[in-house]
Amino acid sequence: MRLVTYAGETGPRPAAVVGDRLLDLGGLAGSVAELLADAAALDAAQAAVDATDASSLPLLDDGALVAPVTPGKILCLGYNYRGHVPDGVDPTANDPEYPDVFVKTSNTLAGPTEPVVIPPGATDVDYEGEVGVVIGRRAQRVSLEEALDHVGGYTILNDVSDRAWQRRQSQWALGKCSDGFAPLGPWVVTPDEVGDPQDLLVEVVRDGVVTVSQSTSTTIFSVAYVIHHLSQVLTLEPGDVVSTGTPQKLPDAQEAHRPLAPGDAVTVRISGIGELTTRFVAAAPATADAQEAIA
Amino acid sequence: MRLVTYAGETGPRPAAVVGDRLLDLGGLAGSVAELLADAAALDAAQAAVDATDASSLPLLDDGALVAPVTPGKILCLGYNYRGHVPDGVDPTANDPEYPDVFVKTSNTLAGPTEPVVIPPGATDVDYEGEVGVVIGRRAQRVSLEEALDHVGGYTILNDVSDRAWQRRQSQWALGKCSDGFAPLGPWVVTPDEVGDPQDLLVEVVRDGVVTVSQSTSTTIFSVAYVIHHLSQVLTLEPGDVVSTGTPQKLPDAQEAHRPLAPGDAVTVRISGIGELTTRFVAAAPATADAQEAIA
Repeated sequence: MRLVTYAGETGPRPAAVVGDRLLDLGGLAGSVAELLADAAALDAAQAAVDATDASSLPLLDDGALVAPVTPGKILCLGYNYRGHVPDGVDPTANDPEYPDVFVKTSNTLAGPTEPVVIPPGATDVDYEGEVGVVIGRRAQRVSLEEALDHVGGYTILNDVSDRAWQRRQSQWALGKCSDGFAPLGPWVVTPDEVGDPQDLLVEVVRDGVVTVSQSTSTTIFSVAYVIHHLSQVLTLEPGDVVSTGTPQKLPDAQEAHRPLAPGDAVTVRISGIGELTTRFVAAAPATADAQEAIA
Repeated sequence: MRLVTYAGETGPRPAAVVGDRLLDLGGLAGSVAELLADAAALDAAQAAVDATDASSLPLLDDGALVAPVTPGKILCLGYNYRGHVPDGVDPTANDPEYPDVFVKTSNTLAGPTEPVVIPPGATDVDYEGEVGVVIGRRAQRVSLEEALDHVGGYTILNDVSDRAWQRRQSQWALGKCSDGFAPLGPWVVTPDEVGDPQDLLVEVVRDGVVTVSQSTSTTIFSVAYVIHHLSQVLTLEPGDVVSTGTPQKLPDAQEAHRPLAPGDAVTVRISGIGELTTRFVAAAPATADAQEAIA
């Protein structure tokens, strides 16, 4: 199933995408996270999807989609894809012993069609297209073997980053946590439809040019390992998102790279999951900001 | 006022501590954060405190206190207190240009009397006694001059840290984000009662020995600067907590330091705010953890 959260008249509601249409699941659970955490509700949702006459459903309105889950935590990995190395060189030679983990705060969450504001004065904003793992079942000190049982599904996260801020400190938080710097979605795809999470092609398209194209088979730490590893330290809850890091840009794209600017659009495309396109816009005038700050 | 959140029969409720008694404020706001964000409700709370006959109030039951706020974000500073230097040496010589900021995730929040579990296998757990700034009014790109207007009050945070995990990565997240590693409270003290946030004595007492004793006058970055600085990047919301870093341990305490172990108790004592005592306990047996993980 492809599970979304849409803005209903009475607030956000979980739904399944059936073809190009929307099947409301608000009768089964209050949110996508609740649905993922409840095996019986999830089965009922699948049965409803299988039984529905799609032609009777309302068309999916992308504009009505909000972030598919509202994570209690967004945990992200730094360097997790191996670089391209010449023949004969061991690609694992530079593998770190542990994943490098950082946090994106709750203010970074943005819906799948929400534009991202380039903050005033930001000079070096960049994108990172990543597979987002959505926790379905609470995970506390889970074994490597059992780790994937705690995955509710997969989505796409653009780990938007302000490199100037990131370079100013040993810790990356201020480079990662600007408002809206974590567009998420458009949906959570359940594991049965995604297949092997270590066999997904992650691509980024910027202004019509493919700038990233690498398989999750080249990650240093598998999804199972990362869930196992994180769960040794902290308890992962349904709806939490673990973003698995970004591949390097392709050599030509690295050379041609320029910071994101208002008007740019970046699409992250992941096989088995879908596409997340993010438009970047200028900040509202300071006066509007001030009003907002007072509101 | 000293504002607390206590576990009422119908859920958590905001209250004021009057002497050794509790004045419920649930009729004025749903939470301490809502109260701090609403100037009129805050005035009404102060009027209620001034008008009440304390002897008619129930005694404060420490055990009923939960974390005074449930922050949407917990932002913490690394190195922010100057070390002791010999006479003639400029104490500002090693000041960094920017605060080093990291995040504690929502699972770290613990109430003021909740024991902290030493995770299984953790070999180097440490304490950090810190002034926690609680945001009262939304802060988005606020000036240095206006920054303190956005502070709702001050509390105490023990930034419990697993140094072994912290050393394993460039990013500190896994060293900072174990479940329950952010005991907070016991209350939020409003700025009018705290006075100058740069003139507070921060002390830590471990097993009866004072191991930290330093004034916030020796911080590199003032509360006003930190709020101003953070708000340039992300929007601070009512209830968010900004923890201002820890002073170094006193030389003797550094020499005598050993990692925290079950049975240890650490008291963070800050002039004008109060005391936060945290007991450290062993993890429940693995079987119980497993059951919890399934629950």
